[in-house]
Amino acid sequence: MTTVRFDGPACPTPLVDTERVQLGHGSGGKLSARLLKDRFLPHLGNPFLAQLSDGAVVPLGGAEAVLSTDTFVVSPLEFPGGDIGMLAVHGTVNDVAMMGARPCYLTAGFVLEEGLPLDLLERIVRSMAAAAQSVGVPLVAGDTKVVERGKADGLYINTTGLGLLDPAFRPGPARARPGDVILVSGEIGRHGMAIMAAREGLAFESAITSDTASLVPLVERLKAAAGDGIRVLRDPTRGGLASALNEIAQASKVGMRLVEDRIPIPVEVGAACEILGLDPMYVANEGVLTAIVAPDQAAAALEALRGHPIGAGARQIGVVTTDHPGYVVLETRIGGTRVVDLLPGDQLPRIC
Amino acid sequence: MTTVRFDGPACPTPLVDTERVQLGHGSGGKLSARLLKDRFLPHLGNPFLAQLSDGAVVPLGGAEAVLSTDTFVVSPLEFPGGDIGMLAVHGTVNDVAMMGARPCYLTAGFVLEEGLPLDLLERIVRSMAAAAQSVGVPLVAGDTKVVERGKADGLYINTTGLGLLDPAFRPGPARARPGDVILVSGEIGRHGMAIMAAREGLAFESAITSDTASLVPLVERLKAAAGDGIRVLRDPTRGGLASALNEIAQASKVGMRLVEDRIPIPVEVGAACEILGLDPMYVANEGVLTAIVAPDQAAAALEALRGHPIGAGARQIGVVTTDHPGYVVLETRIGGTRVVDLLPGDQLPRIC
Repeated sequence: MTTVRFDGPACPTPLVDTERVQLGHGSGGKLSARLLKDRFLPHLGNPFLAQLSDGAVVPLGGAEAVLSTDTFVVSPLEFPGGDIGMLAVHGTVNDVAMMGARPCYLTAGFVLEEGLPLDLLERIVRSMAAAAQSVGVPLVAGDTKVVERGKADGLYINTTGLGLLDPAFRPGPARARPGDVILVSGEIGRHGMAIMAAREGLAFESAITSDTASLVPLVERLKAAAGDGIRVLRDPTRGGLASALNEIAQASKVGMRLVEDRIPIPVEVGAACEILGLDPMYVANEGVLTAIVAPDQAAAALEALRGHPIGAGARQIGVVTTDHPGYVVLETRIGGTRVVDLLPGDQLPRIC
Repeated sequence: MTTVRFDGPACPTPLVDTERVQLGHGSGGKLSARLLKDRFLPHLGNPFLAQLSDGAVVPLGGAEAVLSTDTFVVSPLEFPGGDIGMLAVHGTVNDVAMMGARPCYLTAGFVLEEGLPLDLLERIVRSMAAAAQSVGVPLVAGDTKVVERGKADGLYINTTGLGLLDPAFRPGPARARPGDVILVSGEIGRHGMAIMAAREGLAFESAITSDTASLVPLVERLKAAAGDGIRVLRDPTRGGLASALNEIAQASKVGMRLVEDRIPIPVEVGAACEILGLDPMYVANEGVLTAIVAPDQAAAALEALRGHPIGAGARQIGVVTTDHPGYVVLETRIGGTRVVDLLPGDQLPRIC
């Protein structure tokens, strides 16, 4: 088998204006990483931010807390399987959970566009409240700003989550070790394709619905079943599974080998991606996690995931290797291998 | 003396579209309060959110923490005396400090508009970093989203602050008691008028600069000098001093009597307000606090404020009364009194 490395993107790279913000800066890919590295970190650098994880671990009054923040700008505001309110709860709760922490509280900051129908706003607030209640994480503080017509797109929501860490359970992006197994909790690509279909008015034979869900129950089960054997947890949102695994491979300085046939892609997501020229490995998920697990705990972890409805389709998709540190390689169906790189820019803007 | 109560606004009320979000919903006045009461609280109600304060007090791992969130949409992004980055740090740090807590950490969520010059972004990030460093509160987690041209206005920043509460120091909006004195730490109206002048291209003889500043040193001094004698702390931002005092009067079920001559208004702010038909009592401040203090601690509190440069102009402006609970009354220069009510809508949109 030979490994061919592609540095370029699958689709044509847009001409790059290096002086101004582009949509690709929000993609979670290479442009996002460069923006952070070039324009933010030189000024804001501190040991907490340098963790560059889904959130920051901070000491607080004798305990260790986790803080995570995320702004949601998804378009459309309502989509098959969810809406921006529900997504804003799940997204941040999941980021806190991926740090191994128990999410305790959420705050919400709204930017409302003048002219937004109040009934739509109320529907989204109600959905947010229902999601928060169902996850058991109260929304404790909020803020609302209004901007003129044409200065937003209906509404944007920032949620910030505060969680409490158990010192005995500390998954982290730099903890993957060669020999570990790579699990996913379910089928990938549903959120991104649901948004895309809603936005572009695409009708597929069977409607694709977002997978938006709280991953807290899965993390609790993994912790109980495999404890410290859970080395890394990540929810592959913006940038998809490919970007999440690349970031882990780089942070842990290990390679990864995935088996294409093992990656669970729903038939309708695969078909829609084919039509649109997208790669499901880069499509956002909002109710899937990937776990890097010590080999002796892998079976227990897999069983724990499968015991919960949203983890029923969990499976092993690959292993962590000593080869090609920092790179994720896919064994293709036809027996070759290819590097699964970070995308330079965006496949799908405003997906979350 | 007779008390005349004005229910209506000084300027013509805009025709109200009750079905859609209006700019006035973001004013911090009556429309904001109604939006919260009608569309948010019925769904999101919980004991933390019901505190309706600058932030929420939440138990965390044996300690009491404070969470506060605020989104900044100020226009223009840079203005005399500051910029949105600095404001986003000061604003949230101040909200945490007004709860009596020591601000410990900040998160930042950016919404960037496609086409925003990267140099402008970097300038704002640098300013934010400098403000955070100067206040001693690190920015520990961040998020960046990009939206298409015409879906934002340059950039918006949400900051969320986490602080630690000292159980012995618990100022709160419902703690004002008749006989307490009302202090302000300095001249009012500068931030709002600086924004207004920058936005409208108004040139006054002496430029008005924003007062944006961290109020943490003032709170520390007040705590040391007057401890639990500090009943209420509030930074009168959106909606100005009038709105802040009204909220306290309502929460504490007390009246307030202010002396117009005692309210410190810079000459140039007064003149600009006169020209524009604005009332400085409703103009936003970003580096001023009002403190309601037990009478026997008032002198110590005033001295403590005056010992710090940004509190040098501190003074007593009124007292808390048993009369007319829920209302703030101003003794005017000509010997009459008038009710200082909440504004129905906005004087100045997008001020913070």
